[in-house]
Amino acid sequence: MNGPVLFVTRKAHFNAAHKLFNPLWSKEENEACFGKCANEHWHGHNFDLYVTIKGIPSVDTGFVMDLKKLKVIIENEVVEHLDHKNLNLDVPFLKDILPSVENIAVVIWERLEPHLPANVKLHKIHLIETVNNSVEYYGPNTPF
Amino acid sequence: MNGPVLFVTRKAHFNAAHKLFNPLWSKEENEACFGKCANEHWHGHNFDLYVTIKGIPSVDTGFVMDLKKLKVIIENEVVEHLDHKNLNLDVPFLKDILPSVENIAVVIWERLEPHLPANVKLHKIHLIETVNNSVEYYGPNTPF
Amino acid sequence: MNGPVLFVTRKAHFNAAHKLFNPLWSKEENEACFGKCANEHWHGHNFDLYVTIKGIPSVDTGFVMDLKKLKVIIENEVVEHLDHKNLNLDVPFLKDILPSVENIAVVIWERLEPHLPANVKLHKIHLIETVNNSVEYYGPNTPF
Amino acid sequence: MNGPVLFVTRKAHFNAAHKLFNPLWSKEENEACFGKCANEHWHGHNFDLYVTIKGIPSVDTGFVMDLKKLKVIIENEVVEHLDHKNLNLDVPFLKDILPSVENIAVVIWERLEPHLPANVKLHKIHLIETVNNSVEYYGPNTPF
Amino acid sequence: MNGPVLFVTRKAHFNAAHKLFNPLWSKEENEACFGKCANEHWHGHNFDLYVTIKGIPSVDTGFVMDLKKLKVIIENEVVEHLDHKNLNLDVPFLKDILPSVENIAVVIWERLEPHLPANVKLHKIHLIETVNNSVEYYGPNTPF
Amino acid sequence: MNGPVLFVTRKAHFNAAHKLFNPLWSKEENEACFGKCANEHWHGHNFDLYVTIKGIPSVDTGFVMDLKKLKVIIENEVVEHLDHKNLNLDVPFLKDILPSVENIAVVIWERLEPHLPANVKLHKIHLIETVNNSVEYYGPNTPF
Repeated sequence: MNGPVLFVTRKAHFNAAHKLFNPLWSKEENEACFGKCANEHWHGHNFDLYVTIKGIPSVDTGFVMDLKKLKVIIENEVVEHLDHKNLNLDVPFLKDILPSVENIAVVIWERLEPHLPANVKLHKIHLIETVNNSVEYYGPNTPF
Repeated sequence: MNGPVLFVTRKAHFNAAHKLFNPLWSKEENEACFGKCANEHWHGHNFDLYVTIKGIPSVDTGFVMDLKKLKVIIENEVVEHLDHKNLNLDVPFLKDILPSVENIAVVIWERLEPHLPANVKLHKIHLIETVNNSVEYYGPNTPF
Repeated sequence: MNGPVLFVTRKAHFNAAHKLFNPLWSKEENEACFGKCANEHWHGHNFDLYVTIKGIPSVDTGFVMDLKKLKVIIENEVVEHLDHKNLNLDVPFLKDILPSVENIAVVIWERLEPHLPANVKLHKIHLIETVNNSVEYYGPNTPF
Repeated sequence: MNGPVLFVTRKAHFNAAHKLFNPLWSKEENEACFGKCANEHWHGHNFDLYVTIKGIPSVDTGFVMDLKKLKVIIENEVVEHLDHKNLNLDVPFLKDILPSVENIAVVIWERLEPHLPANVKLHKIHLIETVNNSVEYYGPNTPF
Repeated sequence: MNGPVLFVTRKAHFNAAHKLFNPLWSKEENEACFGKCANEHWHGHNFDLYVTIKGIPSVDTGFVMDLKKLKVIIENEVVEHLDHKNLNLDVPFLKDILPSVENIAVVIWERLEPHLPANVKLHKIHLIETVNNSVEYYGPNTPF
Repeated sequence: MNGPVLFVTRKAHFNAAHKLFNPLWSKEENEACFGKCANEHWHGHNFDLYVTIKGIPSVDTGFVMDLKKLKVIIENEVVEHLDHKNLNLDVPFLKDILPSVENIAVVIWERLEPHLPANVKLHKIHLIETVNNSVEYYGPNTPF
């Protein structure tokens, strides 16, 4: 297939509780490292998620991918599992993973990547925890 | 004191966990009413708080109130008690209060109002839970 | 019912085409008055709609009104009729109404007001056409 | 004239330098009161200005007021005098006025009010200095 | 020329009507593919456009390029042709192009690229259709 | 160290005055080039600064870097030197540098880069002067 390569981004969001807590450490070690984010009773965030795919627009539709379909994949694979959940307790695919925004972004990539059609590539997961903190992940082959 | 009356607003924020859950009801009744907001393991939000006061600017300073002082009052009376906390479990002044955004706004008014200087009035508490949902409270004398 | 009165706001949005055009005027008169907004082939906007209601939170739920229900009313009465529509051609309840943002806001009030529960009052329709232009409507009894 | 009363808002902005400094005080007194805002070499802001007028939409146009005309009034009376200016030094109508955001808002009201057409009223000046600080002014007859 | 390479971005915007409609397909095929975006009477959006160029700041001015000049190029080549227009009907350079946000971004690149000075390169067209949907285009040599 | 490479961004901000003025040129030459940005009495902005680092999350913490520590570095090396300052007069490390947003971004990179821990790399300085103008800098090895 020929034509220009474009990057297309779809936004989603979820509201969730979590705590930053390493179960191999004592409560004091966790507080020393994570500060108030280690509060044993949890805190939470409104997470904004931007999923970017890469591809060549179809001559018939002008679309890299039908975003209504991408929306459904993000809902089914990510949002319905994370929205209004406790990221430490409620999510099977986050079990044994410390739910930092970095680790959540990597898991979201792994959840979405197998469900995309063959003619597009997953390009970026951009996950915003607060207006001050966010992460971007470009997949497992990103060089350091 | 004479002069124009202005409304001055200071922003603060806090990230917290909560659930909407009436302890007098069964789990099923809570889920029927509150839906996913009743998740027993909590969820959370980035709350944005806008506090508006009303007064006449000082001739000496041009200020209705020194916002550095208002910031300290909001930090001491509200933010340090709510930020990175569980609103159902961790906050003495929310004990026995269902932490809906409406009820939190009323409590924030009650916390701040006694600490303001005599020459200003508390005008509004604007509390934003998500981009879709927010409340405004103008104090106990607001007519229906 | 006793208790504090709060104002609760729910956001919605719709993307629509319109033109500003008075059918009683010539094309030249329309262009002289409305400028590029009179383009006969239409233009369009992403409209953001904020609906504010007023009431006393329920002791049982902490809610002035269940916002899931308000969302459904706004969807059924407003968004499904305006989203991805031509406001001059496609909307029966805008027939013979010049679709300025002012007139649309008044019609939205009239559409929503009869569907609210008896214990709340519709307080404000805030309709944002662009980051530069918006209107607020507080109902037919607002004094000039 | 009969019909619904609406509030219409137009946004403008200006980037300016200022310092908070009372010339009747010593440098030390200014620093004690205004902190880093008293820096003798100035600091600056991107000011966002929202001007709200009130009126009844015209049957012919659907407009409370042609916002292209309101834009010109705001440009001529406010923005061209304040944008890329030093608010302490460059603005004749701010001479002898301490340029706090409160005082600037009052002066903006006084500049705009005489230029509005007879069928609308100036309702509010909303001036945003930073995401954390803003003021609203509803005119000289606002009760405390 | 030596020195650090920077990327500089200028924002513009335009409000336009369009529909997603393939004239080679039946009305039913268009609706099956494009859903409500195929509404024959059009819909519309506020488009935000971010144009990024790349270059080395001048020693004399500190500028990669005078953004006042970039603003004029964007106005002349893009905004005046798209703002308050129907993207299917009114734009000669979009004739026979299905006006998806992907295709519009490619055309904007092609319109701007020949007008930039020799010492800068066009780097990216970022076109935002709604808060949920946007595209980025880095030019015809982007590898898939 | 093995594992996925992520990009983590922390936001800061500062409010400052500056003017664009080349001291080797006459006043008229400066005005011809820089327009109103050359106003001899300064103007100012709310600058938003986004600092992006790159690294592999720690297995123990889930963090690429403790953002509380990155925040302190940004405060100590950048914000306390630029906030509420005159960028032409008050900042030793901007002496003899024309304070365009491009040049400021390069200096911020140079200030931060030596203070980051060995396991992360500074990736990007994104400096926003107004909603219309911003720059991104990826370091001295960026190819043109």
